Amino acid sequence: MPSTHESESAPVPFTVDDYRARMDRAARSAADAGLAGVLVAPGPDLVHLTGYQPTAITERLTVLVLAAGRDPVLVVPTLEAPDAGKAVGAGALTLRDWTDGKDPYAVTAPLLDAGGRFGVSDNAWAMHLLGLQKTLPTTSYVSLTEALPMLRAVKDAHELARIEAAGVAADRAYEEILKVRFAGRKETEVAADLAALLLRFGHSQVDFTVVGSGPNGADPHHEAGDRTIERGDMVVLDFGGLKHGYGSDTTRTVHVGEPTGEEQRVHDLVRTAQQAGFEAVRPGVACQEVDRAARAVITDAGYGEYFIHRTGHGIGVTTHEPPYMIEGEEQPLVPGMCFSIEPGVYLPGRFGVRIEDIVTVTDNGGRRLNATPHTMAIVE
Amino acid sequence: MPSTHESESAPVPFTVDDYRARMDRAARSAADAGLAGVLVAPGPDLVHLTGYQPTAITERLTVLVLAAGRDPVLVVPTLEAPDAGKAVGAGALTLRDWTDGKDPYAVTAPLLDAGGRFGVSDNAWAMHLLGLQKTLPTTSYVSLTEALPMLRAVKDAHELARIEAAGVAADRAYEEILKVRFAGRKETEVAADLAALLLRFGHSQVDFTVVGSGPNGADPHHEAGDRTIERGDMVVLDFGGLKHGYGSDTTRTVHVGEPTGEEQRVHDLVRTAQQAGFEAVRPGVACQEVDRAARAVITDAGYGEYFIHRTGHGIGVTTHEPPYMIEGEEQPLVPGMCFSIEPGVYLPGRFGVRIEDIVTVTDNGGRRLNATPHTMAIVE
Repeated sequence: MPSTHESESAPVPFTVDDYRARMDRAARSAADAGLAGVLVAPGPDLVHLTGYQPTAITERLTVLVLAAGRDPVLVVPTLEAPDAGKAVGAGALTLRDWTDGKDPYAVTAPLLDAGGRFGVSDNAWAMHLLGLQKTLPTTSYVSLTEALPMLRAVKDAHELARIEAAGVAADRAYEEILKVRFAGRKETEVAADLAALLLRFGHSQVDFTVVGSGPNGADPHHEAGDRTIERGDMVVLDFGGLKHGYGSDTTRTVHVGEPTGEEQRVHDLVRTAQQAGFEAVRPGVACQEVDRAARAVITDAGYGEYFIHRTGHGIGVTTHEPPYMIEGEEQPLVPGMCFSIEPGVYLPGRFGVRIEDIVTVTDNGGRRLNATPHTMAIVE
Repeated sequence: MPSTHESESAPVPFTVDDYRARMDRAARSAADAGLAGVLVAPGPDLVHLTGYQPTAITERLTVLVLAAGRDPVLVVPTLEAPDAGKAVGAGALTLRDWTDGKDPYAVTAPLLDAGGRFGVSDNAWAMHLLGLQKTLPTTSYVSLTEALPMLRAVKDAHELARIEAAGVAADRAYEEILKVRFAGRKETEVAADLAALLLRFGHSQVDFTVVGSGPNGADPHHEAGDRTIERGDMVVLDFGGLKHGYGSDTTRTVHVGEPTGEEQRVHDLVRTAQQAGFEAVRPGVACQEVDRAARAVITDAGYGEYFIHRTGHGIGVTTHEPPYMIEGEEQPLVPGMCFSIEPGVYLPGRFGVRIEDIVTVTDNGGRRLNATPHTMAIVE
């Protein structure tokens, strides 16, 4: 398999103005939600808002403080300040560094309203939250998923273009994987092929390449193991990663040789459920309606107890983020949101079927960002 | 460069009894520290205590609850329960799973004393801490680094053997890198060579390969860039990763061609400082004394303002963990602790020098786990 990337044009780079606009919007959204501001930890929130990704996320505090009407401030360890200063978004914020041996919470505290309530990145370290709670006991905190689930959920045109490109690359990887031999090879070998294909089609990072053959397919979080794939196996392929910083996530379930009648029936059922979830997508509809629409198909067919996960999750600078398509999620869909629709049926000890596309919300309904057929492909 | 690993014997596998002993010790340490228990998040703490590493760390709550006199309970998403059950340490704990759509904090709360104070993994997600604080407002929390910094700090014999083996591999990588060409190549090329060497000598993961040439060496957190290394450059090489699950971390500063008198003087100074830090190591001595001993050498020579970081950090299942060799850290050294001693001098815009070994504490003082010379190697 060639190790060089297929040639294609690079995406439009994000500019300092893009990051300034995102930080402004985040600060305004926080104010609208009654928050004094937002505390952004290294990870996807910080990448999205500033383009800055520390070399490693460590016990040394790095935090971006956003508040409406104030300039953004990025608190960083002195050692990492030169790197942080090189981020594209650094031109739209002030760096405030602290040196080993100093109390980083004391450096951060003057940037916060003592009595304020702050949104905080889900993945901020508990250690840092506890440090702030101790230094400023009158502040309070709420996770961004709870307070501002929409912070990264609605993608602008340049972001959407990247997610589309990642989807196209995933589709090409799927088309190619259908040509490889399955029977007689280990799951891990097919998984390695999938990973190489994602890289070949321009992914910089592979997050997962699930190959769940036969009974392993009935464990929805099985990755890939030593099991040798056999003729007659149903095989769940779930793969994704990042391309130009944005995610792909696709599942197709294929069969080695001809399926039984039951296998075909379950596959058809999941396909119908995926279509029903997709058709539920339109602006203003609650996320849980997507889950309900897909789930109803499976439940009505008597397989409800075998659909043991939510129907979908958002995707962006990560392959797993809000909004979630799950019962209880009343967040209305908004044009520009991107998420998976991935119902499944898992028959313990026997086989599993899952079909997943990334979908974006448009004014007129959903638009799939994967285009390969849902029909059960027969592989050798 | 060969891509196959050099042959060597695998380490003794950790057993369920090893994990049981670690969990027991953690629960007892917590009780001794006046804590009701410990909440362990996915990451190094969980790997250390159970051998379990989820495929991905996500917004779905996974937490190990340890309390003296009670059986350990691992709360996991239903989807991930089969994987968790396969961990070696799972034989010494009870799994409690929760399904998408349920409140995971309500599942965890009955395992906690409502009025208790709990140690929590540094890197637990703020989102999960906030969820527990909200569900059980009368509990309180403290980070493990603050409450139980020793939790993973003292290594048992099998762990120490792994850190030693990682150190030997890092030494071999250093010996080999001295043979490659530096002048005329980019830092990133030498960094790639270093990474390949770490893998060749058995590392499963490369965490960092810093190549800081000339002025880039004066930024202690510079990784490796596009700069072409030139004859006359001082070059800081700082590299490490995980081998058999345990870390290496080594720094040597080399020179391309003959150094100037000043370069030699600064290198000698840092070498003397490293030796002074090493000689301060013995059981019962506070961590900060290691920092003070190394720093005094540099300060006395008039370079104190150019030593802009702490002297060292612990190492184990991560390459960066407590205990820290830093002013203010009064933790006494205990036999079995393993940490870096890595003083440096950074002359902005000119060059930097850092020398780092991993050291373990024995009854009789320090023992280096790196054995390559500290003298300035001359490379081509």
